[in-house]
Amino acid sequence: MSAAMERIYTDYTAPQPQNNELFSQFKYTELEGFDYHDHDGTISRRDPSKILRYNDKYYVWYTHRQTPTPPQGAAKSNDTIPSSDWDLSEIWYATSKDGFTWEEQGVAIQRPEKPLVGWRSVTTTDILEWEGKYYLYYQGFMEASGKRGDDCPVAVSYADSPDGPWTPHNQIVIPNGAEGEWDQYSIHDPYPLVHNGKIYLYYKSDFGEKPHLVRMQGLAIAEDPLGPFTKHPLNPVITSGHETSLFPFKEGVAALVYKDGPEHNTIQYARDWVNFEIASITELMPYAAAPYVPDAFSDTKDGRGITWGLAHFINVTSNWNKFSSKLVRFDCDLSQDIHDPDMKKHRVVHQPDVYYRQGLNAKQRKRILEAQ
Amino acid sequence: MSAAMERIYTDYTAPQPQNNELFSQFKYTELEGFDYHDHDGTISRRDPSKILRYNDKYYVWYTHRQTPTPPQGAAKSNDTIPSSDWDLSEIWYATSKDGFTWEEQGVAIQRPEKPLVGWRSVTTTDILEWEGKYYLYYQGFMEASGKRGDDCPVAVSYADSPDGPWTPHNQIVIPNGAEGEWDQYSIHDPYPLVHNGKIYLYYKSDFGEKPHLVRMQGLAIAEDPLGPFTKHPLNPVITSGHETSLFPFKEGVAALVYKDGPEHNTIQYARDWVNFEIASITELMPYAAAPYVPDAFSDTKDGRGITWGLAHFINVTSNWNKFSSKLVRFDCDLSQDIHDPDMKKHRVVHQPDVYYRQGLNAKQRKRILEAQ
Repeated sequence: MSAAMERIYTDYTAPQPQNNELFSQFKYTELEGFDYHDHDGTISRRDPSKILRYNDKYYVWYTHRQTPTPPQGAAKSNDTIPSSDWDLSEIWYATSKDGFTWEEQGVAIQRPEKPLVGWRSVTTTDILEWEGKYYLYYQGFMEASGKRGDDCPVAVSYADSPDGPWTPHNQIVIPNGAEGEWDQYSIHDPYPLVHNGKIYLYYKSDFGEKPHLVRMQGLAIAEDPLGPFTKHPLNPVITSGHETSLFPFKEGVAALVYKDGPEHNTIQYARDWVNFEIASITELMPYAAAPYVPDAFSDTKDGRGITWGLAHFINVTSNWNKFSSKLVRFDCDLSQDIHDPDMKKHRVVHQPDVYYRQGLNAKQRKRILEAQ
Repeated sequence: MSAAMERIYTDYTAPQPQNNELFSQFKYTELEGFDYHDHDGTISRRDPSKILRYNDKYYVWYTHRQTPTPPQGAAKSNDTIPSSDWDLSEIWYATSKDGFTWEEQGVAIQRPEKPLVGWRSVTTTDILEWEGKYYLYYQGFMEASGKRGDDCPVAVSYADSPDGPWTPHNQIVIPNGAEGEWDQYSIHDPYPLVHNGKIYLYYKSDFGEKPHLVRMQGLAIAEDPLGPFTKHPLNPVITSGHETSLFPFKEGVAALVYKDGPEHNTIQYARDWVNFEIASITELMPYAAAPYVPDAFSDTKDGRGITWGLAHFINVTSNWNKFSSKLVRFDCDLSQDIHDPDMKKHRVVHQPDVYYRQGLNAKQRKRILEAQ
């Protein structure tokens, strides 16, 4: 048997994608209910949390920026002018009855007074339900993003209800790694799930030099939502991807891995929640994917998977002077409970203009014509 | 070390895509010089051959259909009305000085008289240069496509010059497999390269039932262009993908694997020309990719790779009643000889409308809303 033939029996749960529970296409729907000021760059919503269902409504928390100007870069930023799209932001939230139309409810986590963690910006949150209480983990900036990089430890606030009020813990719960460690510069995208009676919180870090930052994902485990969190000795556990997007699946955990690294455009699976293997290769994946994970916190031994969530589009007008981001809904079939053949088609069919928009730039065309 | 970390050292030539010679993005450029009757469905060009360079010009051969009507399906087809986009076709060719603007030269391989192989349609050709002569391999239909499937053995014609005239061999050179073998139903996309002093011809076959045809690729080897070809005992050697697209790379051979199967959207590499491993995962790949492979026939021990080629878009207007296909140029950096960082970006940036165009269909939306 050839190497490739052997692989389809050993490396995937089914030789064909349509029979692989962890293969899916992704479908996108514009959300109703959010105002973006015609994308003039003064309002941005990005980095949604997992979706929570509570009292027959869906809840999502996200990074919300509303500033007098679009982002101006670190040098021009001040107390009211943002450096980046996620500078001078707060955590807001919205609710929905159907997941398509949303009602913005306003702020959940405000920026605290200087010098408390997050005084400059609080962003990129995710939700945990634990013993009847709710916890929002988020990045807390103490300096305008871009001044020294994007370093922001993880902070947490808690509440008795998803509607708040939220009490800040005002302490760093997951610190950067020590000098020389892979996560010495940042802890981004905290993403809590419950497994084996503990909190399994996945996060992203990056190292290396721009424009080739190496982004990987690690795991920190705690028995109490306020910590202490112990980083897993095998970190990093995912070598590719960007924002964290995971969900319990069967006895293990699955991850959407997109954007960066050699294993982008894959869905991965770790039966032991640590050692991830490629489960499928797909395309046009949602970025900053934040699924509705009904069993995220139930300590399930048979995770049922996901069918939808929110994600974001950044720089929606392609105008760097009016940079803003927006939320979008995605649907998929990564669930044991539905079987949707239209989600399991092997490929996305694009019209030619989608390809032509990925054209040669002037420098490339010059190189090519001069080489002839 | 976690499983994912171990994999980036063992499974890829570089931990990061931009340093992987077999990772690339693909850029697309509309070709000049071809008339498509405003894509009314009466002219189609598809399935280009590898590009050949000869006398300071580039040559490409392709499936050319010019019929009084668009394809009408097998039941309505007759001697002049085509069943499918590749029915009642001939092999035409075009030349170019720069690879962007092409001059169509007309027919290379006509349909022979009934009952000779290919009397109904000759399609999906590819070129071999061997000991100073030129060989075009192609699919020879003896029945309108769709009547019993898409069964067409491989035929060959030869010439002293790429400009012809072409002499048909009028015999099947690669027959279907025996009953029960993986390639019993078809031999598609013959794609010859020269390796170890022999002709290595890769081809596609498919088995299973529509709409879940399983498409895989095999290898047949010959010491003479007219055969006999011996199918490799480890066939199939590639388990995913659709049309054949390969090129010598270093001591081995690389393949573009797209559209179908669990390992679609990958570039694969076989050092021994038989056992393919995934070399990289990418996206928005060219379909029916037909690269310019300067060392396709030089029996190289150090294949230099590819930087461009032609591909096709099928059903370019998305109107099944006016089905036609067109050729397109792609560029990439899968070459040892150039280093283009703009081709090595990890991801394609699409505007939101590209995502929205991949929306839920009515059936999906109904399923989702009813489940709530």
